[in-house]
Amino acid sequence: MSWIKRKETFIKDLKLFKARWDHYHNSNLGIDLDAIVLDAPETANVVAVTKDNKIVMVSQYRFGTQNFSLELPGGIVEPDESLLNAVQRELQEETGFSGENWAYLGFAYSNPVIMNNRCHHYLAREVEKTHPVKLDSTEEITVELIDIKQMRNEIFDLVVHPHTLSALMRVLSVDLKIAIHD
Amino acid sequence: MSWIKRKETFIKDLKLFKARWDHYHNSNLGIDLDAIVLDAPETANVVAVTKDNKIVMVSQYRFGTQNFSLELPGGIVEPDESLLNAVQRELQEETGFSGENWAYLGFAYSNPVIMNNRCHHYLAREVEKTHPVKLDSTEEITVELIDIKQMRNEIFDLVVHPHTLSALMRVLSVDLKIAIHD
Repeated sequence: MSWIKRKETFIKDLKLFKARWDHYHNSNLGIDLDAIVLDAPETANVVAVTKDNKIVMVSQYRFGTQNFSLELPGGIVEPDESLLNAVQRELQEETGFSGENWAYLGFAYSNPVIMNNRCHHYLAREVEKTHPVKLDSTEEITVELIDIKQMRNEIFDLVVHPHTLSALMRVLSVDLKIAIHD
Repeated sequence: MSWIKRKETFIKDLKLFKARWDHYHNSNLGIDLDAIVLDAPETANVVAVTKDNKIVMVSQYRFGTQNFSLELPGGIVEPDESLLNAVQRELQEETGFSGENWAYLGFAYSNPVIMNNRCHHYLAREVEKTHPVKLDSTEEITVELIDIKQMRNEIFDLVVHPHTLSALMRVLSVDLKIAIHD
């Protein structure tokens, strides 16, 4: 490992994360480099499936892309929360669905280049609508139930959110238009 | 659409992107909200497959996660470049591989919540090592050829980079440990 971090410089608290510069020296390359890092909390999302084979999705306006995005329910893990508690809470708050049958599916990093946090993926089976939706004062979310068959056929038309794709690909055989084979 | 953007405030040029606040008013919710946006260039990556069924991957140290990450070759699209030119250039510079047989696989956003850019995915078949690797002065990259069969079985152990997963899932049937069915 040739990258040695020599110093961190705090830039700004940007609400969803804290931005900082990490000041590196690389002994192989003989260079110094300042890398931007967004220090962000862990997140989690869930592939929640109803008894009649529908995936519980949420659509909301996203300020990065300035458009609506169809995503799995999920959100930030609070400091005092377990991953499972966080994702169960987010599913219930955003959609009103809950269930007893949960499995961990692994994680992907948010963006290894500039962020230090992960998105942990869960599967919840046989979820049911048990609670009213309970949104934050700044959230406008529409719940959409997408049939598994439709998702398998249209996933790349419906979903442009990478962490939603990362979770879905762990449990869903996607209909490949072009395939590579060994 | 109830989110009306009233103003943008530039924060800082952070090298890989420009950070700004977008100041919104929501007429349904009756609230004002400041959203952080990272204004970033478009990116592209490629599933490049050799004649003997190996996927050309790159391993490099990532400053966000402070660890090595196994990823598809790719990078930023320069202002004067087409997507295809950019991804062909990145493949050749980072790995020395090139080929004639290219297909577009679609895109995912980098992160719809905070970023405005996309990662476009390509497939390149029958690539061959034709050139020397030509890295930037700040890049340390190791090329790794991963057999398709191994990737299918071990993808979630090998890869934690969401845009690499988003590209691979478009052309590779992944071995599902847990599956949902319609």
